[in-house]
Amino acid sequence: MSAAAAGTLKRLAGEKAASLVKSGMRVGLGTGSTVRFSIEKIGELLQRGELSDVVGVPTSEATAELARTVNIPLSTLEETPDLDVAIDGADEVDPSFQLVKGWGAALLREKMVELCAKRLVIVVDGSKLVPRLGKRGVPVEVVRFGCDHVRRQLASLGCIATLRRAADGQLLVTDNGNHIVDCVFEDGLADAAAIAARISAICGVVEHGLFLSMATDVVCASETGVDFLEKGFAV
Amino acid sequence: MSAAAAGTLKRLAGEKAASLVKSGMRVGLGTGSTVRFSIEKIGELLQRGELSDVVGVPTSEATAELARTVNIPLSTLEETPDLDVAIDGADEVDPSFQLVKGWGAALLREKMVELCAKRLVIVVDGSKLVPRLGKRGVPVEVVRFGCDHVRRQLASLGCIATLRRAADGQLLVTDNGNHIVDCVFEDGLADAAAIAARISAICGVVEHGLFLSMATDVVCASETGVDFLEKGFAV
Repeated sequence: MSAAAAGTLKRLAGEKAASLVKSGMRVGLGTGSTVRFSIEKIGELLQRGELSDVVGVPTSEATAELARTVNIPLSTLEETPDLDVAIDGADEVDPSFQLVKGWGAALLREKMVELCAKRLVIVVDGSKLVPRLGKRGVPVEVVRFGCDHVRRQLASLGCIATLRRAADGQLLVTDNGNHIVDCVFEDGLADAAAIAARISAICGVVEHGLFLSMATDVVCASETGVDFLEKGFAV
Repeated sequence: MSAAAAGTLKRLAGEKAASLVKSGMRVGLGTGSTVRFSIEKIGELLQRGELSDVVGVPTSEATAELARTVNIPLSTLEETPDLDVAIDGADEVDPSFQLVKGWGAALLREKMVELCAKRLVIVVDGSKLVPRLGKRGVPVEVVRFGCDHVRRQLASLGCIATLRRAADGQLLVTDNGNHIVDCVFEDGLADAAAIAARISAICGVVEHGLFLSMATDVVCASETGVDFLEKGFAV
Protein backbone atom coordinates (compact mmCIF):
# COMPACT_ATOMS: atom_id res chain seq x y z
CA MET A 1 0.00 0.00 0.00
CA SER A 2 1.41 3.40 -0.94
CA ALA A 3 1.84 6.15 1.66
CA ALA A 4 -0.85 8.15 -0.14
CA ALA A 5 -3.28 5.23 0.03
CA ALA A 6 -2.47 4.69 3.70
CA GLY A 7 -3.11 8.39 4.36
CA THR A 8 -6.47 8.20 2.62
CA LEU A 9 -7.49 5.16 4.67
CA LYS A 10 -6.43 6.91 7.87
CA ARG A 11 -8.60 9.87 6.92
CA LEU A 12 -11.54 7.58 6.16
CA ALA A 13 -11.11 5.84 9.52
CA GLY A 14 -11.03 9.17 11.36
CA GLU A 15 -14.13 10.31 9.52
CA LYS A 16 -15.93 7.04 10.23
CA ALA A 17 -15.38 7.55 13.95
CA ALA A 18 -16.73 11.09 13.64
CA SER A 19 -19.96 9.68 12.18
CA LEU A 20 -20.81 8.40 15.69
CA VAL A 21 -21.10 11.97 16.94
CA LYS A 22 -24.71 13.20 17.00
CA SER A 23 -26.21 16.63 17.64
CA GLY A 24 -26.23 17.64 21.30
CA MET A 25 -23.33 15.37 22.22
CA ARG A 26 -20.46 16.24 24.53
CA VAL A 27 -17.34 14.80 22.91
CA GLY A 28 -13.89 14.03 24.29
CA LEU A 29 -11.33 14.94 21.64
CA GLY A 30 -8.16 12.85 21.59
CA THR A 31 -4.70 13.76 20.36
CA GLY A 32 -2.76 12.56 17.34
CA SER A 33 -2.57 12.28 13.58
CA THR A 34 -5.62 10.04 13.03
CA VAL A 35 -8.11 11.64 15.40
CA ARG A 36 -7.17 14.90 13.71
CA PHE A 37 -9.33 13.77 10.79
CA SER A 38 -12.24 13.09 13.14
CA ILE A 39 -11.97 16.58 14.58
CA GLU A 40 -11.85 18.18 11.14
CA LYS A 41 -14.89 16.15 10.09
CA ILE A 42 -16.89 17.21 13.16
CA GLY A 43 -16.03 20.82 12.38
CA GLU A 44 -17.16 20.34 8.78
CA LEU A 45 -20.48 18.76 9.82
CA LEU A 46 -21.12 21.62 12.26
CA GLN A 47 -20.29 24.12 9.54
CA ARG A 48 -22.72 22.47 7.11
CA GLY A 49 -25.45 22.39 9.75
CA GLU A 50 -25.58 18.58 9.73
CA LEU A 51 -24.57 18.65 13.38
CA SER A 52 -25.45 21.17 16.08
CA ASP A 53 -24.95 21.75 19.81
CA VAL A 54 -21.75 19.73 19.96
CA VAL A 55 -19.28 20.58 22.72
CA GLY A 56 -15.72 19.22 22.71
CA VAL A 57 -13.41 18.55 25.66
CA PRO A 58 -9.82 18.44 24.38
CA THR A 59 -7.08 16.17 25.76
CA SER A 60 -4.17 18.44 24.85
CA GLU A 61 -3.31 21.99 23.92
CA ALA A 62 -2.63 20.92 20.34
CA THR A 63 -6.11 19.42 20.05
CA ALA A 64 -7.71 22.49 21.62
CA GLU A 65 -6.03 24.63 19.00
CA LEU A 66 -7.13 22.42 16.12
CA ALA A 67 -10.71 22.33 17.45
CA ARG A 68 -10.80 26.12 17.68
CA THR A 69 -9.54 26.34 14.09
CA VAL A 70 -12.47 24.26 12.85
CA ASN A 71 -14.95 26.05 15.16
CA ILE A 72 -15.90 23.28 17.57
CA PRO A 73 -17.13 24.92 20.81
CA LEU A 74 -14.89 23.78 23.68
CA SER A 75 -15.41 23.08 27.35
CA THR A 76 -13.38 21.60 30.21
CA LEU A 77 -13.77 18.53 32.37
CA GLU A 78 -14.64 20.85 35.26
CA GLU A 79 -17.63 22.29 33.38
CA THR A 80 -18.53 19.14 31.44
CA PRO A 81 -17.65 16.04 33.45
CA ASP A 82 -20.08 13.70 31.63
CA LEU A 83 -19.20 12.97 28.03
CA ASP A 84 -21.31 11.02 25.54
CA VAL A 85 -18.37 9.83 23.51
CA ALA A 86 -14.62 10.27 23.17
CA ILE A 87 -12.53 9.61 20.07
CA ASP A 88 -8.81 8.93 20.17
CA GLY A 89 -5.97 6.94 18.68
CA ALA A 90 -3.97 4.19 20.42
CA ASP A 91 -0.50 2.71 20.18
CA GLU A 92 -1.51 -0.90 20.75
CA VAL A 93 -4.95 -2.58 20.67
CA ASP A 94 -5.44 -6.21 21.68
CA PRO A 95 -8.38 -8.45 20.74
CA SER A 96 -10.19 -7.57 24.01
CA PHE A 97 -10.01 -3.86 23.09
CA GLN A 98 -7.43 -3.28 25.82
CA LEU A 99 -5.10 -0.45 24.86
CA VAL A 100 -1.65 0.98 25.31
CA LYS A 101 -1.57 4.72 24.86
CA GLY A 102 0.80 7.52 25.67
CA TRP A 103 3.66 7.24 23.22
CA GLY A 104 2.73 10.86 22.52
CA ALA A 105 3.14 11.63 26.24
CA ALA A 106 -0.44 12.89 26.69
CA LEU A 107 -1.65 9.80 28.52
CA LEU A 108 -2.77 11.39 31.76
CA ARG A 109 -5.10 13.97 30.23
CA GLU A 110 -6.37 11.45 27.72
CA LYS A 111 -7.19 8.92 30.41
CA MET A 112 -8.85 11.48 32.65
CA VAL A 113 -11.10 12.74 29.84
CA GLU A 114 -11.85 9.32 28.38
CA LEU A 115 -12.83 7.80 31.71
CA CYS A 116 -15.65 10.38 31.69
CA ALA A 117 -17.08 9.15 28.37
CA LYS A 118 -19.90 6.60 28.04
CA ARG A 119 -18.34 5.40 24.82
CA LEU A 120 -14.67 5.45 23.78
CA VAL A 121 -14.04 5.08 20.05
CA ILE A 122 -10.47 4.20 19.09
CA VAL A 123 -9.18 4.86 15.59
CA VAL A 124 -6.07 3.02 14.42
CA ASP A 125 -4.44 1.43 11.43
CA GLY A 126 -3.75 -2.29 11.26
CA SER A 127 -0.15 -1.92 12.47
CA LYS A 128 -1.47 -1.13 15.96
CA LEU A 129 -3.29 -4.44 16.40
CA VAL A 130 -1.34 -6.85 18.64
CA PRO A 131 -2.11 -10.25 20.17
CA ARG A 132 -0.67 -9.06 23.51
CA LEU A 133 0.01 -5.58 24.87
CA GLY A 134 3.34 -4.35 26.13
CA LYS A 135 5.96 -5.66 23.71
CA ARG A 136 6.50 -2.22 22.24
CA GLY A 137 6.43 -0.54 25.62
CA VAL A 138 3.96 0.78 28.18
CA PRO A 139 4.58 4.47 28.95
CA VAL A 140 4.39 5.35 32.65
CA GLU A 141 4.24 8.97 33.84
CA VAL A 142 6.34 9.43 37.00
CA VAL A 143 7.18 12.38 39.23
CA ARG A 144 10.62 13.88 38.77
CA PHE A 145 11.77 13.37 42.36
CA GLY A 146 13.46 9.98 42.64
CA CYS A 147 12.54 9.14 39.04
CA ASP A 148 15.42 6.72 38.58
CA HIS A 149 14.43 4.97 41.80
CA VAL A 150 10.89 4.65 40.42
CA ARG A 151 12.33 3.41 37.12
CA ARG A 152 14.15 0.61 38.94
CA GLN A 153 10.98 -0.43 40.74
CA LEU A 154 9.22 -0.59 37.38
CA ALA A 155 12.08 -2.71 35.99
CA SER A 156 11.59 -5.13 38.88
CA LEU A 157 8.16 -5.96 37.40
CA GLY A 158 10.03 -7.75 34.62
CA CYS A 159 10.43 -5.12 31.94
CA ILE A 160 13.19 -3.05 30.37
CA ALA A 161 12.43 0.36 31.85
CA THR A 162 13.95 3.48 30.29
CA LEU A 163 13.46 7.13 31.09
CA ARG A 164 12.34 8.80 27.88
CA ARG A 165 14.50 11.58 26.50
CA ALA A 166 13.49 14.52 24.34
CA ALA A 167 15.26 15.42 21.09
CA ASP A 168 17.74 17.58 23.02
CA GLY A 169 18.89 14.59 25.09
CA GLN A 170 17.31 15.87 28.30
CA LEU A 171 14.67 13.81 30.11
CA LEU A 172 11.31 14.44 28.48
CA VAL A 173 8.92 16.60 30.54
CA THR A 174 5.16 16.09 30.10
CA ASP A 175 2.46 18.78 30.08
CA ASN A 176 2.13 18.05 33.79
CA GLY A 177 5.81 18.56 34.54
CA ASN A 178 6.58 14.86 35.01
CA HIS A 179 8.86 12.33 33.28
CA ILE A 180 7.96 9.22 31.26
CA VAL A 181 9.40 5.73 31.80
CA ASP A 182 8.90 3.36 28.84
CA CYS A 183 8.44 -0.22 30.04
CA VAL A 184 9.05 -2.90 27.41
CA PHE A 185 7.77 -6.35 28.32
CA GLU A 186 9.60 -8.66 25.93
CA ASP A 187 6.94 -11.36 25.85
CA GLY A 188 4.00 -8.97 26.16
CA LEU A 189 1.58 -8.93 29.08
CA ALA A 190 -0.18 -12.17 29.95
CA ASP A 191 -2.31 -10.31 32.52
CA ALA A 192 -2.46 -6.58 31.78
CA ALA A 193 -4.83 -5.82 34.69
CA ALA A 194 -2.46 -7.38 37.22
CA ILE A 195 0.53 -5.43 35.90
CA ALA A 196 -1.54 -2.23 35.79
CA ALA A 197 -2.36 -2.62 39.48
CA ARG A 198 1.28 -3.26 40.37
CA ILE A 199 2.43 -0.23 38.38
CA SER A 200 -0.20 1.99 40.04
CA ALA A 201 0.90 0.86 43.49
CA ILE A 202 4.45 2.19 43.04
CA CYS A 203 4.95 5.43 44.93
CA GLY A 204 5.97 8.10 42.42
CA VAL A 205 3.87 6.75 39.56
CA VAL A 206 1.35 9.34 38.39
CA GLU A 207 -0.41 7.28 35.71
CA HIS A 208 0.29 4.56 33.17
CA GLY A 209 -0.60 4.00 29.54
CA LEU A 210 -2.65 0.83 30.01
CA PHE A 211 -6.24 1.76 29.16
CA LEU A 212 -8.19 -1.29 30.26
CA SER A 213 -11.96 -1.83 30.05
CA MET A 214 -12.36 1.57 28.45
CA ALA A 215 -12.62 1.24 24.64
CA THR A 216 -16.11 0.34 23.40
CA ASP A 217 -15.42 0.62 19.65
CA VAL A 218 -12.35 0.25 17.46
CA VAL A 219 -12.27 1.61 13.91
CA CYS A 220 -9.39 0.14 11.93
CA ALA A 221 -7.96 1.20 8.59
CA SER A 222 -6.25 -1.65 6.76
CA GLU A 223 -5.57 -2.73 3.21
CA THR A 224 -9.04 -4.23 3.05
CA GLY A 225 -10.69 -0.93 3.97
CA VAL A 226 -12.07 0.80 7.05
CA ASP A 227 -14.06 -1.28 9.52
CA PHE A 228 -15.39 -1.43 13.04
CA LEU A 229 -13.65 -4.39 14.63
CA GLU A 230 -15.35 -7.08 16.68
CA LYS A 231 -13.82 -8.21 19.97
CA GLY A 232 -11.74 -11.34 19.50
CA PHE A 233 -10.41 -10.21 16.11
CA ALA A 234 -7.49 -12.25 14.72
CA VAL A 235 -4.06 -10.59 14.58
CA MET B 1 1.73 22.60 80.27
CA SER B 2 3.54 25.80 79.27
CA ALA B 3 4.71 26.38 75.71
CA ALA B 4 8.30 26.26 76.95
CA ALA B 5 7.71 22.89 78.64
CA ALA B 6 6.01 21.57 75.50
CA GLY B 7 8.97 22.73 73.42
CA THR B 8 11.38 20.96 75.75
CA LEU B 9 9.39 17.71 75.52
CA LYS B 10 9.31 17.98 71.74
CA ARG B 11 13.09 18.37 71.71
CA LEU B 12 13.48 15.37 74.04
CA ALA B 13 11.22 13.28 71.79
CA GLY B 14 13.20 14.26 68.70
CA GLU B 15 16.44 13.41 70.44
CA LYS B 16 15.10 10.08 71.67
CA ALA B 17 14.31 9.10 68.09
CA ALA B 18 17.84 10.09 67.07
CA SER B 19 19.22 7.65 69.66
CA LEU B 20 18.09 4.80 67.35
CA VAL B 21 20.62 5.89 64.75
CA LYS B 22 23.85 3.89 64.94
CA SER B 23 27.19 4.28 63.17
CA GLY B 24 27.17 3.20 59.54
CA MET B 25 23.43 3.70 59.11
CA ARG B 26 21.72 5.23 56.09
CA VAL B 27 18.97 7.46 57.49
CA GLY B 28 15.88 8.97 55.90
CA LEU B 29 15.44 12.48 57.25
CA GLY B 30 11.87 13.74 57.57
CA THR B 31 10.53 17.26 57.49
CA GLY B 32 9.04 19.40 60.23
CA SER B 33 9.50 21.04 63.58
CA THR B 34 9.95 17.89 65.70
CA VAL B 35 12.24 15.88 63.46
CA ARG B 36 14.37 19.01 63.29
CA PHE B 37 15.56 18.14 66.79
CA SER B 38 16.46 14.61 65.65
CA ILE B 39 18.54 15.99 62.81
CA GLU B 40 20.35 18.45 65.07
CA LYS B 41 21.06 15.64 67.53
CA ILE B 42 22.49 13.37 64.81
CA GLY B 43 24.73 16.24 63.72
CA GLU B 44 25.88 16.75 67.30
CA LEU B 45 26.67 13.04 67.81
CA LEU B 46 28.66 12.99 64.55
CA GLN B 47 30.52 16.12 65.65
CA ARG B 48 31.40 14.57 69.00
CA GLY B 49 32.55 11.37 67.32
CA GLU B 50 29.86 9.29 69.06
CA LEU B 51 28.48 8.43 65.62
CA SER B 52 30.32 7.90 62.36
CA ASP B 53 29.66 6.93 58.72
CA VAL B 54 26.06 8.13 58.82
CA VAL B 55 24.48 9.16 55.51
CA GLY B 56 21.18 11.04 55.36
CA VAL B 57 18.57 11.06 52.59
CA PRO B 58 16.43 14.19 53.00
CA THR B 59 12.70 14.40 52.21
CA SER B 60 12.64 18.11 51.38
CA GLU B 61 14.87 20.99 50.43
CA ALA B 62 14.41 22.52 53.89
CA THR B 63 15.64 19.32 55.53
CA ALA B 64 18.60 19.05 53.15
CA GLU B 65 19.61 22.57 54.12
CA LEU B 66 19.31 21.88 57.85
CA ALA B 67 21.30 18.65 57.50
CA ARG B 68 24.07 20.45 55.64
CA THR B 69 24.17 23.08 58.40
CA VAL B 70 24.83 20.40 61.03
CA ASN B 71 27.26 18.52 58.74
CA ILE B 72 25.35 15.31 58.07
CA PRO B 73 26.66 13.81 54.79
CA LEU B 74 23.77 13.59 52.32
CA SER B 75 22.80 11.22 49.55
CA THR B 76 19.81 10.65 47.27
CA LEU B 77 17.37 7.80 46.84
CA GLU B 78 19.02 7.10 43.47
CA GLU B 79 22.40 6.51 45.12
CA THR B 80 21.10 5.08 48.39
CA PRO B 81 17.84 3.21 47.84
CA ASP B 82 18.10 1.03 50.97
CA LEU B 83 17.78 2.89 54.24
CA ASP B 84 18.25 1.44 57.71
CA VAL B 85 15.89 3.86 59.40
CA ALA B 86 13.85 6.97 58.68
CA ILE B 87 12.67 9.52 61.24
CA ASP B 88 9.73 11.84 60.65
CA GLY B 89 6.74 13.52 62.25
CA ALA B 90 3.08 12.78 61.51
CA ASP B 91 -0.22 14.64 61.64
CA GLU B 92 -2.31 11.76 62.96
CA VAL B 93 -1.28 8.44 64.50
CA ASP B 94 -3.82 5.73 65.34
CA PRO B 95 -3.34 2.83 67.79
CA SER B 96 -2.21 0.52 64.92
CA PHE B 97 0.56 2.99 64.04
CA GLN B 98 -1.26 3.96 60.86
CA LEU B 99 -0.50 7.57 59.94
CA VAL B 100 -1.82 10.62 58.19
CA LYS B 101 0.96 12.85 56.88
CA GLY B 102 1.28 15.68 54.44
CA TRP B 103 -0.25 18.71 56.10
CA GLY B 104 3.15 20.21 55.31
CA ALA B 105 2.64 19.25 51.65
CA ALA B 106 5.81 17.11 51.44
CA LEU B 107 3.93 13.81 51.48
CA LEU B 108 5.12 12.39 48.20
CA ARG B 109 8.85 12.70 48.87
CA GLU B 110 8.38 11.59 52.45
CA LYS B 111 6.50 8.48 51.40
CA MET B 112 8.97 7.60 48.67
CA VAL B 113 11.94 7.86 51.04
CA GLU B 114 10.26 6.18 53.99
CA LEU B 115 9.08 3.20 51.97
CA CYS B 116 12.79 2.49 51.45
CA ALA B 117 13.53 2.28 55.18
CA LYS B 118 13.59 -0.95 57.19
CA ARG B 119 12.38 0.99 60.22
CA LEU B 120 10.25 4.15 60.31
CA VAL B 121 10.35 6.06 63.59
CA ILE B 122 7.59 8.62 64.04
CA VAL B 123 7.98 11.48 66.53
CA VAL B 124 4.85 13.29 67.70
CA ASP B 125 3.28 15.00 70.67
CA GLY B 126 0.14 13.64 72.33
CA SER B 127 -2.18 15.91 70.33
CA LYS B 128 -1.50 13.82 67.22
CA LEU B 129 -2.82 10.56 68.68
CA VAL B 130 -6.31 9.73 67.40
CA PRO B 131 -8.61 6.73 67.74
CA ARG B 132 -9.39 6.91 64.00
CA LEU B 133 -7.58 8.61 61.13
CA GLY B 134 -9.12 11.12 58.77
CA LYS B 135 -11.27 13.42 60.92
CA ARG B 136 -8.80 16.25 60.56
CA GLY B 137 -8.23 15.59 56.89
CA VAL B 138 -6.20 13.35 54.59
CA PRO B 139 -4.08 15.37 52.14
CA VAL B 140 -4.10 14.05 48.58
CA GLU B 141 -1.63 15.31 45.96
CA VAL B 142 -3.33 15.68 42.57
CA VAL B 143 -2.21 16.84 39.13
CA ARG B 144 -3.25 20.34 38.13
CA PHE B 145 -5.12 19.34 34.98
CA GLY B 146 -8.75 18.66 35.89
CA CYS B 147 -8.01 19.13 39.59
CA ASP B 148 -11.55 20.19 40.46
CA HIS B 149 -12.86 17.12 38.65
CA VAL B 150 -10.50 14.98 40.73
CA ARG B 151 -11.63 16.84 43.86
CA ARG B 152 -15.25 15.90 43.14
CA GLN B 153 -14.32 12.26 42.69
CA LEU B 154 -12.58 12.38 46.06
CA ALA B 155 -15.70 13.98 47.61
CA SER B 156 -17.75 11.07 46.26
CA LEU B 157 -15.82 8.80 48.65
CA GLY B 158 -17.76 10.46 51.48
CA CYS B 159 -15.52 13.32 52.56
CA ILE B 160 -15.46 17.08 52.43
CA ALA B 161 -12.81 17.67 49.78
CA THR B 162 -11.19 21.08 49.44
CA LEU B 163 -8.36 22.28 47.22
CA ARG B 164 -5.73 23.76 49.53
CA ARG B 165 -4.82 27.39 49.04
CA ALA B 166 -1.56 29.15 49.83
CA ALA B 167 -1.37 32.35 51.88
CA ASP B 168 -1.82 34.43 48.71
CA GLY B 169 -5.21 32.80 47.99
CA GLN B 170 -3.92 30.88 44.96
CA LEU B 171 -4.09 27.08 44.87
CA LEU B 172 -1.09 25.68 46.72
CA VAL B 173 1.60 24.16 44.48
CA THR B 174 3.75 21.33 45.89
CA ASP B 175 7.48 20.80 45.29
CA ASN B 176 6.39 18.53 42.44
CA GLY B 177 4.19 21.15 40.77
CA ASN B 178 0.90 19.57 41.85
CA HIS B 179 -2.06 20.68 43.99
CA ILE B 180 -3.30 19.29 47.32
CA VAL B 181 -6.91 18.29 48.09
CA ASP B 182 -7.68 18.00 51.82
CA CYS B 183 -10.25 15.26 52.46
CA VAL B 184 -12.03 15.47 55.80
CA PHE B 185 -13.92 12.33 56.82
CA GLU B 186 -16.28 13.52 59.54
CA ASP B 187 -16.51 10.20 61.38
CA GLY B 188 -12.94 9.18 60.66
CA LEU B 189 -11.95 6.13 58.62
CA ALA B 190 -13.34 2.76 59.67
CA ASP B 191 -11.15 1.06 57.04
CA ALA B 192 -8.17 3.21 56.08
CA ALA B 193 -6.69 0.61 53.71
CA ALA B 194 -9.91 0.39 51.69
CA ILE B 195 -10.15 4.17 51.34
CA ALA B 196 -6.45 4.38 50.46
CA ALA B 197 -6.98 1.94 47.58
CA ARG B 198 -10.02 3.87 46.33
CA ILE B 199 -8.11 7.17 46.47
CA SER B 200 -5.13 5.68 44.59
CA ALA B 201 -7.40 4.36 41.86
CA ILE B 202 -8.66 7.84 40.91
CA CYS B 203 -7.02 9.07 37.72
CA GLY B 204 -5.20 12.32 38.49
CA VAL B 205 -4.21 11.34 42.05
CA VAL B 206 -0.44 11.38 42.44
CA GLU B 207 -0.22 10.20 46.06
CA HIS B 208 -2.13 10.42 49.34
CA GLY B 209 -1.20 11.08 52.94
CA LEU B 210 -2.28 7.74 54.38
CA PHE B 211 0.94 5.98 55.46
CA LEU B 212 -0.27 2.48 56.28
CA SER B 213 1.84 -0.45 57.52
CA MET B 214 4.93 1.74 57.47
CA ALA B 215 5.65 3.06 60.98
CA THR B 216 7.53 0.60 63.21
CA ASP B 217 8.09 2.91 66.20
CA VAL B 218 6.28 5.94 67.64
CA VAL B 219 7.97 8.28 70.11
CA CYS B 220 5.43 10.49 71.84
CA ALA B 221 6.00 13.58 73.98
CA SER B 222 3.20 14.15 76.47
CA GLU B 223 2.72 15.68 79.90
CA THR B 224 3.92 12.45 81.45
CA GLY B 225 7.19 12.53 79.51
CA VAL B 226 8.69 11.06 76.38
CA ASP B 227 7.97 7.43 75.57
CA PHE B 228 7.97 4.81 72.88
CA LEU B 229 4.32 3.83 72.44
CA GLU B 230 3.04 0.28 72.18
CA LYS B 231 0.54 -0.67 69.50
CA GLY B 232 -3.00 -0.57 70.85
CA PHE B 233 -2.32 2.50 73.01
CA ALA B 234 -5.41 4.18 74.50
CA VAL B 235 -6.40 7.61 73.19
